[in-house]
Amino acid sequence: MATFNTEQIASWERFYRANFINSLTGYKSVSLLGTINSVGHPNLAVFSSIVHIGSNPPLIGFINRPVTGASHTLANIEATGIYTINHIHSTFVQQAHQTSAKYDVGISEFEEVGLTAVFHEHIAAPFVKESHVKYALSLQEIIPIKLNDTLLVIGKVISIHIEQEIIAEDGFIHLEKVNSLCSNGIDSYYTTELLARFQYAKPGIQSQKIN
Amino acid sequence: MATFNTEQIASWERFYRANFINSLTGYKSVSLLGTINSVGHPNLAVFSSIVHIGSNPPLIGFINRPVTGASHTLANIEATGIYTINHIHSTFVQQAHQTSAKYDVGISEFEEVGLTAVFHEHIAAPFVKESHVKYALSLQEIIPIKLNDTLLVIGKVISIHIEQEIIAEDGFIHLEKVNSLCSNGIDSYYTTELLARFQYAKPGIQSQKIN
Repeated sequence: MATFNTEQIASWERFYRANFINSLTGYKSVSLLGTINSVGHPNLAVFSSIVHIGSNPPLIGFINRPVTGASHTLANIEATGIYTINHIHSTFVQQAHQTSAKYDVGISEFEEVGLTAVFHEHIAAPFVKESHVKYALSLQEIIPIKLNDTLLVIGKVISIHIEQEIIAEDGFIHLEKVNSLCSNGIDSYYTTELLARFQYAKPGIQSQKIN
Repeated sequence: MATFNTEQIASWERFYRANFINSLTGYKSVSLLGTINSVGHPNLAVFSSIVHIGSNPPLIGFINRPVTGASHTLANIEATGIYTINHIHSTFVQQAHQTSAKYDVGISEFEEVGLTAVFHEHIAAPFVKESHVKYALSLQEIIPIKLNDTLLVIGKVISIHIEQEIIAEDGFIHLEKVNSLCSNGIDSYYTTELLARFQYAKPGIQSQKIN
């Protein structure tokens, strides 16, 4: 095995380190965030830093980079308080990745990459029509992370749109049945295969597989 | 497609909602956190809320549940300032899941589930010998999330142990070559397959696959 210490990591070329550290944390949820600005221009951007905060209430966070002039997604979320998160499937992975290009404000990534904006009642932000698992959030709090000037943006799930047939009896969602993707590093996308579900683990008893 | 609104989500039975919301966020990095307490007892626990915070400096966070008497991992991290994160592979998925059982303090999950604690110089916390991708962190900050009393625990990567042959020339790590797993919901584990890596996206140019 190779070993690297603090000094070696700090000495790496910037893009090498970004690729390495982004892969080191393991597979990530990767989704498209849909927003709209105060004059009605839709925006779509790929994010891979989504993290489950809690289920009751249903709170979901994502890490936003240090704010620069180019943070259209965050500016829109702050302006409207509403955003959507849409799973990415293998059928439109290239279009999803293309949303990471730095388009000017006022340009719709939906149109540029060839995905379809769709609106549902009471939700101002656009969903991705092609996505089989999508939900809208109401902004709750933006927590600054002073260590590196990033932000933890937390929203509450207020609306869910999903294929009924992938929901198990106990609420578990079989994401593999609609080919939801995960990502690794900053530019790679993976399909998945279910290995096992396990029962709630208890000391002294080997937990059994479900089904 | 099925649609669910705020009131419906709030009405769900507790475990149904936990399964649902934990799957809704998509695939997660799943790893074993290794710690040691002030009198030298090792602890190992599975976590699926790991999130990349930044690469320079290399900062990685995880969400810790509201603190109760049973939070051995967090108590150990606060006591020693050091912890390890170890990828889970299909060869020991059952042992990894079993660490989620509520063992008493002083009981080593390593021994109970059948994984091997290994120590590397200058790092007080135990690594998982069976893991092919593992790293140690130095605690930097614990940020309270008041919305639901969870905590964002942020550490800096200070040591990495990894199979050299899975590191690409540009720093990307081919996690699929050592069968690192990802998770979905609270109890399921998945293998992955690389679909594509894409070049840095630019407006007006369809980004090409790498390799």
